[in-house]
Amino acid sequence: MQPLPLLHQHQMSSQHSATPIRLLALRNDVVCEQMDWLATEEPLEIRVQGPGQEMVRVAVTMRTPGHDHELAVGFLYTEGLIQARHEIVAIQADGSQDDQAPCNVVTIHLTRPIDPTTVQRNFYTTSSCGICGKTSLEQIAVHCAPVAPGPVVPRAALVELPTTLRTAQRLFAQTGGLHACALFDVKGRLLSLREDVGRHNAVDKLVGQMLLEGNIPLRDQILLVSGRTSLEIMQKAAMAQVPIVCAISAPSSLAVEVAQRFRMTLVGFLRDTHCNVYTHPERLALDR
Amino acid sequence: MQPLPLLHQHQMSSQHSATPIRLLALRNDVVCEQMDWLATEEPLEIRVQGPGQEMVRVAVTMRTPGHDHELAVGFLYTEGLIQARHEIVAIQADGSQDDQAPCNVVTIHLTRPIDPTTVQRNFYTTSSCGICGKTSLEQIAVHCAPVAPGPVVPRAALVELPTTLRTAQRLFAQTGGLHACALFDVKGRLLSLREDVGRHNAVDKLVGQMLLEGNIPLRDQILLVSGRTSLEIMQKAAMAQVPIVCAISAPSSLAVEVAQRFRMTLVGFLRDTHCNVYTHPERLALDR
Repeated sequence: MQPLPLLHQHQMSSQHSATPIRLLALRNDVVCEQMDWLATEEPLEIRVQGPGQEMVRVAVTMRTPGHDHELAVGFLYTEGLIQARHEIVAIQADGSQDDQAPCNVVTIHLTRPIDPTTVQRNFYTTSSCGICGKTSLEQIAVHCAPVAPGPVVPRAALVELPTTLRTAQRLFAQTGGLHACALFDVKGRLLSLREDVGRHNAVDKLVGQMLLEGNIPLRDQILLVSGRTSLEIMQKAAMAQVPIVCAISAPSSLAVEVAQRFRMTLVGFLRDTHCNVYTHPERLALDR
Repeated sequence: MQPLPLLHQHQMSSQHSATPIRLLALRNDVVCEQMDWLATEEPLEIRVQGPGQEMVRVAVTMRTPGHDHELAVGFLYTEGLIQARHEIVAIQADGSQDDQAPCNVVTIHLTRPIDPTTVQRNFYTTSSCGICGKTSLEQIAVHCAPVAPGPVVPRAALVELPTTLRTAQRLFAQTGGLHACALFDVKGRLLSLREDVGRHNAVDKLVGQMLLEGNIPLRDQILLVSGRTSLEIMQKAAMAQVPIVCAISAPSSLAVEVAQRFRMTLVGFLRDTHCNVYTHPERLALDR
């Protein structure tokens, strides 16, 4: 697909994703000063603007600078505010004009007007029967159909995913402080990796990238997240129609409920040659 | 202090904090069915009500049921919506009247009217100079003074904290899927522990408990969190005036900035006999 016009291209250089720090290191009973790197955390404001409309503030998220356009686009998509790439006219990085300084506002210009009340809605509406996990699932179902059957992944490919992720995780190696998520094909080949201090941001960056590249829905891919899976992560994966979600750590009860409801395969505790399969094991060939 | 009147006492039993699940376990090349436990994730709506006022919806948070009153009170306190325990008239758990069912709404009745526009404010206001980490720190400073010098913790007590936490972490042992935070005295004795699928909720539960017991500010305590430290966690700790925050994993750049700004001691990667001290090491006696 044709690249979108970027009114002010401003992707962060890696120097903004990590921040140097002088610290005291205690190693057994020895104390020494040393230099180290921290994962950078900065707010990003996401705005939308329709033709002839006032700009509408959508959200502020605390994120690691880098891939900000993708984060903003992915956020709008996984929250159901846009449905397709063709709704995006342009992406504008506002704020500082200095290429070396972080830019903490991204405005997405849309082909159609956006209703500010939709943007300001509370994601979880309280129905008369009371707020509960079921209400949360119904909210997701407004935007999201069950995922197609999709691919079958052999065991050998599945158990290799964490090693591939860790090898590719550049910033984590530097700071030890970042969540990662990655997309793989059914043979276990890494397609893309995104890192962030916030798990949900890492997923939004990946989904945003895929939307901008014309690859949504993600019908044949595996999503691997470095930590746990929650409602929020599974909701974003369901919006992108990912058939298989794997995590290094545990799922929550609602993560499993989202996977059941939207017919996604959910794998947890994927470490060494072990894992737990919580839902839809038919997409995994565990015997080969 | 006198206990507050609880209009409908409804603390979750442990059976609601963990949810049973049947799964497929892959162990090397053996696949078997087994039963396991998931950390429960359910929404909680937090409401406030002033005298003669309409109820105001403050937030919905995805949390692990249990200690919901403390979570609601802690959230209001760490977000700056209440300043002291005496502002609370009563705590009401709405929703189901069935003691065995989860109750997902907590209303805090206050002595004074609350301005709905204050509640609906965006935490991060965008100043004319642009949104940035400095803006986030200024927002915290509206409610929060620098922390007092406080105690000095010997190395021997410091390095023992993670072992004490892990030993006490009941639900984590069951589900493997929960964040924990705990308060210790300067001798490393555990004072309280809270677990949740959300790190911020675990901190709010702990702060809420301490506020209800009349123990805020926490001038002589150590807060230990099981994961990473971010702006959000450090903001909550600063509101409770905790002098020392320790974490098993890495801080973000803004976590360190909050610690610097509010004169808090921040320790990261506290594992075995190792740690990194990022700010204010004068509260640690690392030589003994």
